[in-house]
Amino acid sequence: MTESSRRLVLAQRPQGMVDEDVCRMETGPVPEPAEGEAVVRVRWLSIDPTIRTWMDDAPGYLPPIELGAVVRCGALGEVIATRSDRYPLGATVFGMMGWQDHAIVDSGAATAQVIPDGVDPTAALSIFGVTGMTAYFGLLEIGRPQEGDTVVVSGAAGATGSVVGQIAKAKGAGTVVGIAGGPEKCAWIVDELGFDAAIDYKADDVPARLRALCPDGIDVYFDNVGGVILDACLANLALRARVVLCGAISAYNDRGSAHGLTNYTALIARRARMEGFLVLDYVDRFAEGQGEMLGWVLEGKVKHAVHVVEGLADAPDALNLLFTGGNTGKVIVKVDEP
Amino acid sequence: MTESSRRLVLAQRPQGMVDEDVCRMETGPVPEPAEGEAVVRVRWLSIDPTIRTWMDDAPGYLPPIELGAVVRCGALGEVIATRSDRYPLGATVFGMMGWQDHAIVDSGAATAQVIPDGVDPTAALSIFGVTGMTAYFGLLEIGRPQEGDTVVVSGAAGATGSVVGQIAKAKGAGTVVGIAGGPEKCAWIVDELGFDAAIDYKADDVPARLRALCPDGIDVYFDNVGGVILDACLANLALRARVVLCGAISAYNDRGSAHGLTNYTALIARRARMEGFLVLDYVDRFAEGQGEMLGWVLEGKVKHAVHVVEGLADAPDALNLLFTGGNTGKVIVKVDEP
Repeated sequence: MTESSRRLVLAQRPQGMVDEDVCRMETGPVPEPAEGEAVVRVRWLSIDPTIRTWMDDAPGYLPPIELGAVVRCGALGEVIATRSDRYPLGATVFGMMGWQDHAIVDSGAATAQVIPDGVDPTAALSIFGVTGMTAYFGLLEIGRPQEGDTVVVSGAAGATGSVVGQIAKAKGAGTVVGIAGGPEKCAWIVDELGFDAAIDYKADDVPARLRALCPDGIDVYFDNVGGVILDACLANLALRARVVLCGAISAYNDRGSAHGLTNYTALIARRARMEGFLVLDYVDRFAEGQGEMLGWVLEGKVKHAVHVVEGLADAPDALNLLFTGGNTGKVIVKVDEP
Repeated sequence: MTESSRRLVLAQRPQGMVDEDVCRMETGPVPEPAEGEAVVRVRWLSIDPTIRTWMDDAPGYLPPIELGAVVRCGALGEVIATRSDRYPLGATVFGMMGWQDHAIVDSGAATAQVIPDGVDPTAALSIFGVTGMTAYFGLLEIGRPQEGDTVVVSGAAGATGSVVGQIAKAKGAGTVVGIAGGPEKCAWIVDELGFDAAIDYKADDVPARLRALCPDGIDVYFDNVGGVILDACLANLALRARVVLCGAISAYNDRGSAHGLTNYTALIARRARMEGFLVLDYVDRFAEGQGEMLGWVLEGKVKHAVHVVEGLADAPDALNLLFTGGNTGKVIVKVDEP
């Protein structure tokens, strides 16, 4: 066991992207477990856009990260010391363990869950983790695609969007269109993942392409980005369309000048529904989603990609990738040795 | 019977408010019914914001009014000549008869419905008509208020909004707040209609008043106006709130510079739903709504007000009242003699 343990704490609230002034690396002793606790050696960090929202001093679905506190983050690790029956030595656990080498987990509150042996850790954090479950429950419970529907998803080469499109196809959607940035990502979602078409928002006229690819309108739009792309989709909805608001990456770094939606009145004429969604509300049903997902993975209907960043110190850069579009698939940090 | 009949036709598409260049008065002979038709002497016009949207050359839930065609409008009148068993002589009928003295109704397509004898024509056009049914089905089917909920409605002194607030109280809402323009309207909805509180959007700080009056957030927001007021309500939603989009008066005359919604991301953290609604989808259930409404009217739980404008030639001015806030309650034109 190492003698020291690193942690990245929030030094100041970011203006825009996360830079070196925002996070400060601290080093201290490896913690010891109290009665009912275990110490986890953190191995893999799940890098999700929502982390950026927790860094702002703004009300949200969870409290902001306090200044000086470790950056909150879902992570996977291994129990290295334990005084808890719930977390046996050597077990793999998932929890909100944060950007650090070692975390205390507590059996009193359900702060971490034990992952069965043999699950690939990157799959546990992506397709079978919060990301995959966001795609599964957001699409099926809020979007409710019907056989033959036209489904559009933005952030389509990202961790959630790439899975949304594949689930839509697996469930019998008629046309699945992904919106992504750049020709490589667009080729990947069509050629590798089986989307019917892609729109490159960096090069294409998005409204014109939406009209061409969805001539009868969009039945389900799964939104990961907000802003101008959401607005363009609102202008092209089918009757009784469902818009799933999962994230608004375009607004997270730039709240002041975020694009305001002007096409929301289309919801009236189309009798359409736009609904926000947080996967936390479906934690009790994860086993159901993970089971169906496993079936699709085994049938080859759902594939996933991970983008691994090496080293705890690079976690802020890994987070920024989500906003610059530098990733394809799920961004995961592999925590190095201190 | 008069020898001549007037009609107001759409002469050009409006830019903003409807002025004398937009509508042209034409005069012609009183029409004769063909087999299966009846001729109706139009007596009362239902003036609704949606008429303004039909004047634009833009796709909507109904086609735009064609240039040179009579302005489309719901109206009530009396059958003065008939060759249809469906429309007996002397019957009172409601239908999309338009801004004119006489209209042909046709028993082939269900273009008009016979109104039972003894119904006050202004009540038939307001509380028991499309306006009242919009309030009823929009609030109950889309907003779904629960006992104790906090319900906010904009356009609260208007035809629909005034009824929405009263239905909410009748159904057991905890707090009902109306947003209206000016101290008279605000006093009227509280003192006469039984709203719990009013916000004067012309004088008050709307976001601050919403926070003060709805400390636990808004459970149901019934939106008649769109724009900045909708945006302010989005910033103050309760968990699992429902936003009913019924109209967006603020945007109808000024599409180019309409306020863009920036607080839509609150729908995510609040797991809230924003849904558009058209009363046309509920025509088959009007009898159910009219029955329950009649009960509330007889119990004194729902009151209504009408703002009568005299004379067919003033129909454009009557329409403009809806956008300047010059009315309290339902605007109806009493058609004069030609």
